Amino acid sequence: MHVFTYACLVSTQAQVLYDFAAEPGNNELSIREGETITITNQNIGGGWIEAKNSKGEVGLVPEDYIEINQAQPFTSGGNAAPLDLSFFDSHMPTPASTAQTSNGNDPWTVFDNNASGGFSNNWAAQPEGTETGKTSSNAWHSGGHGHPQAYQGPGAEDDEWDEEWDDVKSSGGYAESEAGEGGAINRGGAHGSSMKIALNKFPGFSKSGPELYLLSKQPAKGTKLPVYSGEVGPVWAYPDYQLDCVVADPKKGSKLYGLKSYIEYQVTPTTTNKPVNHRYKHFDWLYERLLEKFGSAIPIPCLPDKQVAGRFEDEFIKMRMERLQGWMTRMCRHPVISSSEVFQLFLSYKDEKDWKMGKRKAEKDETVGVMVFSTIEPEGLPDLDLIEVEQKCEQFNRFTRAMDDGVKDLLTIGNEHWKRCTGPLPKEYQRIGKAFQNLSSVFTSSGYEGEAALTDALTAAGKTYEEIAQMVAEQPKKDLHFLMETNNEYKGLLGCFPDTVGVHKAAIEKVKEADKLVAAGKITPSDKTTMSKRASTMSYSLQAEMNHFHSNRIYDYNRVMQQYLEQQVKFYEMIAEKLRHAHSRFTTM
Amino acid sequence: MHVFTYACLVSTQAQVLYDFAAEPGNNELSIREGETITITNQNIGGGWIEAKNSKGEVGLVPEDYIEINQAQPFTSGGNAAPLDLSFFDSHMPTPASTAQTSNGNDPWTVFDNNASGGFSNNWAAQPEGTETGKTSSNAWHSGGHGHPQAYQGPGAEDDEWDEEWDDVKSSGGYAESEAGEGGAINRGGAHGSSMKIALNKFPGFSKSGPELYLLSKQPAKGTKLPVYSGEVGPVWAYPDYQLDCVVADPKKGSKLYGLKSYIEYQVTPTTTNKPVNHRYKHFDWLYERLLEKFGSAIPIPCLPDKQVAGRFEDEFIKMRMERLQGWMTRMCRHPVISSSEVFQLFLSYKDEKDWKMGKRKAEKDETVGVMVFSTIEPEGLPDLDLIEVEQKCEQFNRFTRAMDDGVKDLLTIGNEHWKRCTGPLPKEYQRIGKAFQNLSSVFTSSGYEGEAALTDALTAAGKTYEEIAQMVAEQPKKDLHFLMETNNEYKGLLGCFPDTVGVHKAAIEKVKEADKLVAAGKITPSDKTTMSKRASTMSYSLQAEMNHFHSNRIYDYNRVMQQYLEQQVKFYEMIAEKLRHAHSRFTTM
Repeated sequence: MHVFTYACLVSTQAQVLYDFAAEPGNNELSIREGETITITNQNIGGGWIEAKNSKGEVGLVPEDYIEINQAQPFTSGGNAAPLDLSFFDSHMPTPASTAQTSNGNDPWTVFDNNASGGFSNNWAAQPEGTETGKTSSNAWHSGGHGHPQAYQGPGAEDDEWDEEWDDVKSSGGYAESEAGEGGAINRGGAHGSSMKIALNKFPGFSKSGPELYLLSKQPAKGTKLPVYSGEVGPVWAYPDYQLDCVVADPKKGSKLYGLKSYIEYQVTPTTTNKPVNHRYKHFDWLYERLLEKFGSAIPIPCLPDKQVAGRFEDEFIKMRMERLQGWMTRMCRHPVISSSEVFQLFLSYKDEKDWKMGKRKAEKDETVGVMVFSTIEPEGLPDLDLIEVEQKCEQFNRFTRAMDDGVKDLLTIGNEHWKRCTGPLPKEYQRIGKAFQNLSSVFTSSGYEGEAALTDALTAAGKTYEEIAQMVAEQPKKDLHFLMETNNEYKGLLGCFPDTVGVHKAAIEKVKEADKLVAAGKITPSDKTTMSKRASTMSYSLQAEMNHFHSNRIYDYNRVMQQYLEQQVKFYEMIAEKLRHAHSRFTTM
Repeated sequence: MHVFTYACLVSTQAQVLYDFAAEPGNNELSIREGETITITNQNIGGGWIEAKNSKGEVGLVPEDYIEINQAQPFTSGGNAAPLDLSFFDSHMPTPASTAQTSNGNDPWTVFDNNASGGFSNNWAAQPEGTETGKTSSNAWHSGGHGHPQAYQGPGAEDDEWDEEWDDVKSSGGYAESEAGEGGAINRGGAHGSSMKIALNKFPGFSKSGPELYLLSKQPAKGTKLPVYSGEVGPVWAYPDYQLDCVVADPKKGSKLYGLKSYIEYQVTPTTTNKPVNHRYKHFDWLYERLLEKFGSAIPIPCLPDKQVAGRFEDEFIKMRMERLQGWMTRMCRHPVISSSEVFQLFLSYKDEKDWKMGKRKAEKDETVGVMVFSTIEPEGLPDLDLIEVEQKCEQFNRFTRAMDDGVKDLLTIGNEHWKRCTGPLPKEYQRIGKAFQNLSSVFTSSGYEGEAALTDALTAAGKTYEEIAQMVAEQPKKDLHFLMETNNEYKGLLGCFPDTVGVHKAAIEKVKEADKLVAAGKITPSDKTTMSKRASTMSYSLQAEMNHFHSNRIYDYNRVMQQYLEQQVKFYEMIAEKLRHAHSRFTTM
């Protein structure tokens, strides 16, 4: 087991997984598969890491192209808890081990090395779902977007990743705000330096154990997040007006005199009705802010893949837009997220200056990670004892795991069905159609009188089956697609739960140890009471979140099943109608 | 090239293809694969041949277990033409070569060795259709009846073939009538001794070249078969009342105190409405009589397979009955066949004595093979010149070959579709159904209130897809089956055309040589005129037959397509209806 340390290790070895050719003039470093390199800076952002090769050359390499060998360094960052937490060391989830496997690890197995015992967090029995929601979110699809894992590097053409790096260097993007942090090389100001690499896979909890919150003496900062007692149990405070937004109108923009291209999406909130333009990287920035801030309490679903190849193709743009829309809708629907400052910032771009100021402020937010629980306030809800807390947590864990299985199962079957409906099945209908038409044209050659009625009808029947072939091939886009997208979205969302639940489990373990710690004089009885109360608050937060999840799930599955079945009915009715017409052309003799 | 000789060779070598163990007391001879045996009597009938092994032991062996090595002997039979026909030798089709390949040869390639030139009879380009209609008539079906080729021998259990042999020996069947032929070892009185072995594949023409008829001085015997000028061209004389019959009520019968079992089918003609019982072997006897008598002029479709294994299984019996029904209906519909004496005999069994007398008479019929043309009388139709005759023949040849391709193509595709519809497709729908139900049961476990409406609807949707799975799997039996059966029947029928057309082509070649023969003094100018006139009569016969074929084809394909599409419409409508119901169970929120 990797030991969780607060010491900041400076250099780390990494193995190169794939060849990468540096683009000249971009500060990149060419690397070869199998080569060992030394990480010199993991905090570059945008998918890049600074590394040194054996010749001493330093440059940037794509983080997905390498595998880091050693336990990752970890710094506690700006808001280190003001108390000695070393007694928790052996029970912490190990961000080091998670960071180490950032090239495709399994969120369900993250707690394998966690010695804290109690719950089994090992969901490793997933047969096919060992990717995170993010990296595999496109994988169900048989189209060209199915293999985003192998990041393709910025070498070839004008490239959004490259763009991001350009931003860092020149356009006052992340780098500018980072430069504003005196001495800190962190991209975000408030959190651990090793976070970036694991950010996509491990929400806030990993940068600071739940004890940061459980024993925090600091007053809560930021907007309060109340939890009320609702009909179905603890619920978030829902706004009167349900925010939504429309992601539309993707436009190709360019900079550097047209040398660099990117796609901008128009995002229009229903509140203001004023469109703002955002590139994918802005969505990604928002995602990372939300993950940092809320990830411990609220599963933040990943964005659609950061695909590089073919990202200027119309179909890809359309698909990405659709998924960004899905993601935004989900975020809008969440009362906590939609009302958050950073989310509102994203929806209300006024001018560049305002945007940059807002970004900087968001990046400096200190109430992130587990500290978000400090802003949660159960209203009129009695403190829960630890057994209840544990039961609820276990229940949600079981449910989300079971649903994850069910969703993946459906995706697997849906994917096979998609392939059959777009591949062999229409081909077969087409061949049936051709066979009828072929027979018809043989019949035409008979020279026999009175042949025309049959041959016309047979040709029409043949054409009908060719039309059916086309309908069959196009149908999945009309129904299965949405069923798949919804389940895919849920797969991504469910993929966040082990982490969210993990924070709660870790907290429960801490509270369980409180007696021992009091006995050992490590904490005061008052600290213990605080811990227990805060675990109760965390549980209300989790329950509110689960109730939010359930209510959305019921809505989403009702809607998608209705849509699916409605389209299926239309599909079969149209086939029947076409065949009825074909049938009518044959004469009864 | 094998030379066609009229000399009667007595002994022929054969290679043993499969082991066969003689049943004691049955006059059988055990043989081993690879062994060479000497044929001592090919005219046993019932699928048996008498042979002698190297030890000098003589006994019966199944004809499908051996391959005959040499050119088959040929005797001209009782009604040998009274003129020297040796000048035709080098131009005759070679029944020897056809008989030689009787274990699975290709009817389309039978004329490959024919040096007479002119037409190309080589249809060998058939990619998959190298079997005769008969041996492969079941092959489209994915069920258990698809491999009837390897005849399984009478050794194992009670066996219909064995039964047939019992008949030959004891019950006054074929053997009795043969014994009645003083000295002649032929089963039928009038035709060549080598016919039996080639009978299934090569109709009448092969036992006597068309010159038998073209130059025959004998007066025509038997019922006249007029050909009239109809709307569509030359037509047979159609009866006012269309005969039909119902094949039904298969019953297991037994003899030899229950030791031997067989299936009897009830055949009820619509004319008499008096049912008669017939076993498969009786149908086979009828088939062989019809083939002998009419095969040169009318393609006689093969019976369903002489399958041995599983022939007492209900499904097989049902399928055989259905196909016997199809065959009988087709025979009934043919004006020449349905009015023939032998066919009427089959439909009007009075008593055993009457039946046996009728059989004997039929077997003694001398107007068989090409001599059937002597009974055909074009009424009020002008003599055709040879060019017209040749053009018509070529046209029919092209058409039947093209249709044969088209039908086989449709069968191939239909077979694949059958497999998909009964295999992977319903499995997939079932899995979709299970996935919905599984998700529903996961949802049920959420503990969230207000879940029931969704989970009920989702379960119902899942069950609907399971029902659809079953519908999909059962549908081919309701529609594709009949489409396949009809095409299968046509495949069998079309498989007879190369032989029928071949007789005509051979006749045309003879007439083409007439001038030379007159010049050489081999025939008289009057003979030449007769030959030409008779070729014209043959052409009218062929045209009448083709018009019959076309009219039936149009009827059959209209009917089967209507039936297919009607069932398809119902199928898709029912799916739509089921899905509509499933859809209605989801609530709009």
